[in-house]
Amino acid sequence: MPTLAIDVMSGDLGAAECVPGALLALEQAPDLRLELVGKPETIEPLLAGASASLRARATIVAASDVVPMDELPRAAIRRRKASSMRIAIDRVKEGAALGCVSAGNTGALTAIAHFVLKTVPEVERAPIMSALPAAHGHAYMLDLGANVSATAEQLRQFALMGSIVARDVHGIAQPRVGLLNIGEEDIKGHETVQAANALIAASGLRYLGFIEGDDIFSGEVDVVVTDGFTGNVALKSMEGLARLIAGTMRAEFTRSLGSRAAALVARPVLKRVGAALDPRRYNGACMVGLRGVVVKSHGSADRTAFARAIALARNAAIHDIPGCVARALGPNGSLQGS
Amino acid sequence: MPTLAIDVMSGDLGAAECVPGALLALEQAPDLRLELVGKPETIEPLLAGASASLRARATIVAASDVVPMDELPRAAIRRRKASSMRIAIDRVKEGAALGCVSAGNTGALTAIAHFVLKTVPEVERAPIMSALPAAHGHAYMLDLGANVSATAEQLRQFALMGSIVARDVHGIAQPRVGLLNIGEEDIKGHETVQAANALIAASGLRYLGFIEGDDIFSGEVDVVVTDGFTGNVALKSMEGLARLIAGTMRAEFTRSLGSRAAALVARPVLKRVGAALDPRRYNGACMVGLRGVVVKSHGSADRTAFARAIALARNAAIHDIPGCVARALGPNGSLQGS
Repeated sequence: MPTLAIDVMSGDLGAAECVPGALLALEQAPDLRLELVGKPETIEPLLAGASASLRARATIVAASDVVPMDELPRAAIRRRKASSMRIAIDRVKEGAALGCVSAGNTGALTAIAHFVLKTVPEVERAPIMSALPAAHGHAYMLDLGANVSATAEQLRQFALMGSIVARDVHGIAQPRVGLLNIGEEDIKGHETVQAANALIAASGLRYLGFIEGDDIFSGEVDVVVTDGFTGNVALKSMEGLARLIAGTMRAEFTRSLGSRAAALVARPVLKRVGAALDPRRYNGACMVGLRGVVVKSHGSADRTAFARAIALARNAAIHDIPGCVARALGPNGSLQGS
Repeated sequence: MPTLAIDVMSGDLGAAECVPGALLALEQAPDLRLELVGKPETIEPLLAGASASLRARATIVAASDVVPMDELPRAAIRRRKASSMRIAIDRVKEGAALGCVSAGNTGALTAIAHFVLKTVPEVERAPIMSALPAAHGHAYMLDLGANVSATAEQLRQFALMGSIVARDVHGIAQPRVGLLNIGEEDIKGHETVQAANALIAASGLRYLGFIEGDDIFSGEVDVVVTDGFTGNVALKSMEGLARLIAGTMRAEFTRSLGSRAAALVARPVLKRVGAALDPRRYNGACMVGLRGVVVKSHGSADRTAFARAIALARNAAIHDIPGCVARALGPNGSLQGS
């Protein structure tokens, strides 16, 4: 029965969504136990309505502080030792929990997770990785924003780790890996992606070479590698566009009596489209390459989305991502057989 | 009557779409004259069906060569002097045309345009800028991929040029400028965006500070500044996502008899949504900061989209973007009154 430590105090919506989200996750996974890390006086009332069987699998771990959303990473390490984020990560370090989840400040989470848990040997920096919708399934993209930049060697490590997780956790036998660039021809892009291209090509992965942003969704690539700056901007841009499209649809379908009638008829179909692309289904990004499971939830996640991030952490813990990465990255950092 | 030089041989679809696109642009703008640059034997047959009045405003300018899509920028400068792309740009340099349009290789177009036309004083590198759909209107984003990287000073220049074009061409009195980053707090991001943030804040622009990818579409920013690598990846990612959403809608609306009936009822509304967000409406990105108008069309543009890129070049030429930029960027590079 895996136990996870959940920072229920962070994110834009705080405990009001995180605690119900944790209960939802417990409901969805009967084998799960959760430590709810935060202020007991805030958490207790939010558990009041929970059934005894759910309540029995949730323990409160007291944390008196919260990392603010604008805290500098280094300051968070130094000053927030009593925060819900830090204590959730400490619980993983201590072996009390197999993994942790937080919707807090990405910079602080990255810094504290690296500081407390450390990366596995051969890994310099842990990127965050998430599934995205793609034609006929999903693509897995990393780094989505844990690090503000990446060297060619770090991009090579991202490619290796992405492949391992796609294979060992998501069951893709030979993941196809692409490196994001601004042109598909080998001649394009800056020095870092050029150097990374050569390193990844020599890594023994199933490497497609450079891909462009629109290839992410084509269904022809499983693992999309990029630095955290580009990855985060691309991810947020997609979120913004999806919201604009949804808003435009809503506006057009409510514009007149006729279009409102059309909306009524089209609703079941539109609901299916919405469900297939619902960003809440894709909430939760795994920080890969640490000696423990750390999952970052979107800051604005509601309870449904937060439960999804917990389910992802459970899956990552069950599949022992840290162990998979450590075993697969040999002394030379090349992909080893599973 | 503005004359533009059109490279009708480049892009994924070549003359078969570029020549009809040019005719469409002539039809839409009765004051326009076009030089169609390319192989006469290819262009002539494609003009056969055109009315005499359109034909009278189109001149063929012979070019025997075409820049391949995978040509290295420097090689394109050296070896493609007889190409349709080069001659179209030469026509601007010679004063025969007020601007040019090409759907060719972005790297080659950027290199040849910088080499032949040069940037206006105070401008180091010319970025490409395009409108994007946003809530209640548009946002203008630059650089979308002319340059693979940008220094802080270059990002400051992009902010200035973006403001000038938004004001003088698009009529936005005091454009709100944002700098793309992976967090809105001043503490986030790498050194270059940190330094650019300080420079732009001191530039006298209406500067909102850091924005994130989803803010592009919020309607709360007019000019989005980023480097060409990040901008291009974000743009292409959005294109890919839009295509995935459209594909998912098509699949769901044709899945059963019932959903096909729903599609019939919803079609007028869906058409309005599609028209509002049609990427072809947004085709054409202006290379800003050169001593001449250069517009990059999407490589896969069809005739409708290519005509839109020509209309954009006409508008840029009429508003004399090169002159606006040169006049507004004073000796210190700060924004001057119009």
